[in-house]
Parts: sequence; C-alpha cells; structure tokens
Amino acid sequence: MHLMTLSRFRATAPALPFSGPAMAPSLRLPVNGASGDAKDAVVILEKTPFQEESISDLLKKHTRLKLQMSNDIYSTYHLYPPPQLSEIKTTVVYPATEKHLQKYLRQEVYLIRETGEDYKNITLPFIQSQSFSIQWVYNILEKTAEADRIIHENPDSSNGFVLIPDFKWNQKQLDDLYLIAICHRRGIKSLRDLTAEHLPLLRNILQEGKEAILKRFGVAGSQLRIYLHYQPSYFHLHVHFTALSYDAPGCSVERAHLLSDVIDNLELDPQYYQKRTLTFALRADEALLKKFQEAGKA
Amino acid sequence: MHLMTLSRFRATAPALPFSGPAMAPSLRLPVNGASGDAKDAVVILEKTPFQEESISDLLKKHTRLKLQMSNDIYSTYHLYPPPQLSEIKTTVVYPATEKHLQKYLRQEVYLIRETGEDYKNITLPFIQSQSFSIQWVYNILEKTAEADRIIHENPDSSNGFVLIPDFKWNQKQLDDLYLIAICHRRGIKSLRDLTAEHLPLLRNILQEGKEAILKRFGVAGSQLRIYLHYQPSYFHLHVHFTALSYDAPGCSVERAHLLSDVIDNLELDPQYYQKRTLTFALRADEALLKKFQEAGKA
Repeated sequence: MHLMTLSRFRATAPALPFSGPAMAPSLRLPVNGASGDAKDAVVILEKTPFQEESISDLLKKHTRLKLQMSNDIYSTYHLYPPPQLSEIKTTVVYPATEKHLQKYLRQEVYLIRETGEDYKNITLPFIQSQSFSIQWVYNILEKTAEADRIIHENPDSSNGFVLIPDFKWNQKQLDDLYLIAICHRRGIKSLRDLTAEHLPLLRNILQEGKEAILKRFGVAGSQLRIYLHYQPSYFHLHVHFTALSYDAPGCSVERAHLLSDVIDNLELDPQYYQKRTLTFALRADEALLKKFQEAGKA
Repeated sequence: MHLMTLSRFRATAPALPFSGPAMAPSLRLPVNGASGDAKDAVVILEKTPFQEESISDLLKKHTRLKLQMSNDIYSTYHLYPPPQLSEIKTTVVYPATEKHLQKYLRQEVYLIRETGEDYKNITLPFIQSQSFSIQWVYNILEKTAEADRIIHENPDSSNGFVLIPDFKWNQKQLDDLYLIAICHRRGIKSLRDLTAEHLPLLRNILQEGKEAILKRFGVAGSQLRIYLHYQPSYFHLHVHFTALSYDAPGCSVERAHLLSDVIDNLELDPQYYQKRTLTFALRADEALLKKFQEAGKA
C-alpha cells in the first residue's frame, strides 16, 4: 500500500510508522464544514494493489504511454491509466479532533531492550494488570468457534495445538499464505515463559505444522517462515506460518523469532528466554512504553 | 511499490519473491513486433509513491470521488485521479528470452539452515571460489571515492569504521533513512567470522554510529534498527542502520541480525557464530543453493 495522510500544519512531519514500505509525508488538509468554518480533517490515501483482471484494460491503446528511456531490449515508460483503473482508497475522518490527528499523523516508534529483570519488574506486572480477554482463543481450542477452519490439530492437552488460517489471509492465493498454530496448553504467555519443558510442544508445532501445510496447500517447509512474535499481540502462545516470499507484517528482526532458533536456544540453555535481553518496538501511545519510561529504561 | 509482472502463459503462477508487500500475479503479455509475429515480452508495472507536491491537485474538484461508506465522522471513498496524477512506472523487456522470463517471472525462495559445519564445508569454499570484487568498498575506505559522502569516521585500522549513506537513500527525507557502517579492518567476511576479538569494533559501530546519526540527522538511537545481514551481499563486514519505522528491504527475521544481539551473543560465547546454526533464504537461481542441494542439505 502507498499511504499518505494529510495535515495542514505538519507539512514537514516525519513519516507514520505503519508497517509498509511506503513513505507517508503528512499534510493536514483544510476541509470546509457546512458552516463554512475550516475544520481539521484526516485524509488517508492508499494506492491499492493491481487487479489481475484489469491488466489487459490497463494496457489497451487508450492508455497514454510516454517513453522515458530505451536501451537495447530494455525500455521504460510512464503509463497514465484512465481514472477508473487507478482507484485510490480514500478514508476521511471529519471533523478530526486533536486525538485523531495524533493517532493518524504521527506515531513515533521506540526500540526497547528488555532484560530478564526488566521483564520481571516492568513487563510482567503490566501484562498481569491488564485484563486482556483471550476468550476467542479458547473458543477456537474448544471448537465453539471457527471449528470448520481448522487445518490440523494435535489434541494433546500438553504438547498439542490447533493450526488455523490467520484472518489476514483470504486463502484465495498462496502468495500471502498466513496460518497460526495455537497451543492447547494454557498459561504460556509468550516467548519469555518458554523453557526446555516446552520443547516437545515446539517441535510438534514445527514438524506437524509444516506437514499439514504441505499436505493442504502444497507449500514445502523450506518455503515457510515460521516464527513467534515478541511482544505478541495476545498472551497465549502461538506461532506464525507465512510464505517466505511474502513480506508479512511483523516479520522484521525487531519482532520475529524463528521457531527453529527458539528450539536451538532452549536446547542450548533451558532458561534462555528468562535470562536473555530481548528487543522490541513500542509505539508512542502504548501504555507499556510509559512503564519503561517511568522506570528510566526508555 | 505495487509491482505486477506480466506473462501470457503463466496466468496462475505464484507470486514473485520480491521483497515488497505487494502481490504479483504473473501474466505473460503478447507484444507484436515489427514483423507482426507475437513474441514474448516482460512488462513490469509499478505504482509509485505519492508525491507530496501533487496532493492538492489530487484532491481538487475535477477528481472523481465516489462515496463507499459513511459512519459518524468516518467515511471512505473511491477516488479516481486524472491520468497525469496516477503515473505507473512501466518497464518492458522485448523481445524477452526464456532467461528473462525466468528472471522476472518466478523465483522460488528456499530457507537454508546452515550449521557451523555446513558453513565450513559448503558456504566458505563457495565464497572463496568466487572472486567477488570489493574494490568499491576499499575505494570508500581509502577515500578515493565518495569521500564527500562520509558522515562519520573512526580511523582506527583495527576497531574503526566509516559511516556513509546507503545508495538506496536519497537523504531527502528521514522516512527511509539508510546508512551503512563499513569497518576498516579487512578480512572479516561476515557474521560467521566474528569472535569476541571483534567486540571493541562492534561496540564502536553501535555507539558512534548512533551518535553520528543523532548529530547529523536528529534521529535517536532508539528509533534506529541496527543490524547485519547473513548472507551479506558483499563479504566485507558492514552494518545497516535504518529508520525503525521504515520497512527496509532485508530487515526480516530470516536475514537480519540485530547488532545488539550479536554483541550479547559474543559476550556469552566468543565462538557463538562459528558454532551456531544460521538461517537464510536463497533464490532458486543462486549458485550457493545448488551447492547446498548437491550436499543434500536443501
């Protein structure tokens, strides 16, 4: 996606930290309300991916094509598509409050280096103070929801798991294949809780997850990126399976931990993830960042 | 970027493994040559980022706007920009040989788990058999090229380095800030060669690199992603500095290694990177993949 958020007063503001490669200079845009008063609006513009079915239209003669460079068999052009083939997804928040502007216009991100002690003193108490509901996870594990979406299950209550397509994946193409393995065992909040005791569970997820994806989708294990997030977005242990050629959100080095590496680390040292300093990014508006700042650690 | 490569015969081929988030279904396109014969062509279409200066034009009344959804202060539209504001970068290779089609149309990627032994037996002999020229690196270090681009230098021949903007960064905005630290010392090919002996060098790069970027560009160390690639693209030790909010190519978990983690690992075990299994992806056409396949390791 190419995103651009507009703001009248922040023409030189730095980019939004959304997880795409697009640049997003910010410009606040004056929008006139019914009263004629200029009020702030947030306008988000996104260039959408090409639609395969519209490509032949895009290349038809009535599309303007301007030669830029030609060298041997290579040439480059500027192609100016007709409006109906270059739709821009536009989202408007109007009138926008200061809070909206904050939310959309800039979100600084900060890298945290969390020691084992920081986890115990800052992160763990914070997680415990929040009552994150993970009922939706239990619903999946208990088959009271999404039972028909399950791709594979190992029913063992201690070392078993459920493999299910992630909601971000529509299952229509393999390009952005994305599945999640959710362990049956409760109480493993994240990477930080893992010890050598969990090796059988982790090995099951790695091995059976790959086999199930090969069988159902024809994608080999060597073409999968299999990893955990730290911090995770919910505190019940789960593992991400994405197509290696897909630049999935959250697969960058400051958030993703390859399951194979996690297994190696636990084999090397059963307490690896209790001791190790882990790095992750927090947005300026995240409550956990404030906790680290209060502790003088960010 | 939104990329689409076209091929007539591979309408259902899986995506290209380019390092962007866009999906790229492939369609080979018939292009008629002067003789009237249909020959193969590769056509690459890329939606380009928004230009800040054209935004006000984009939002002027003559642009068609179609309401899609409205709810309270939020609404979404389809915006149909005039052709001159929705340029698509188009690259044509014509006539295209089978080799071009291979190069552009599909490149499977495979994950390799390289043990310390694999490195010694497969990767290292391969690197040594190739005569990769890194004269351009020496030119930078010796100031015979790009001397005016140097942001910071520690001239120590053993623990010093040069910090220079990466060519991918035009230095016009901080959104995609990208610099490279290149060590003065020769002969450190990659992460695999690092031992505790190199800790002073690595700490200098981390500390002075952050300071220099703060001083010159006003970007704090906590907003930088600082990492090494494995495999690197050239075999002289260098470290990447990118804006944390920028989804830089090559920052995903199967290629990037945070410099802070590298330092921690070497402090823990001076031989960490000689022993450790490292994961990386190789494209189907890379010679190193063939070596791993011949050894029965991929």
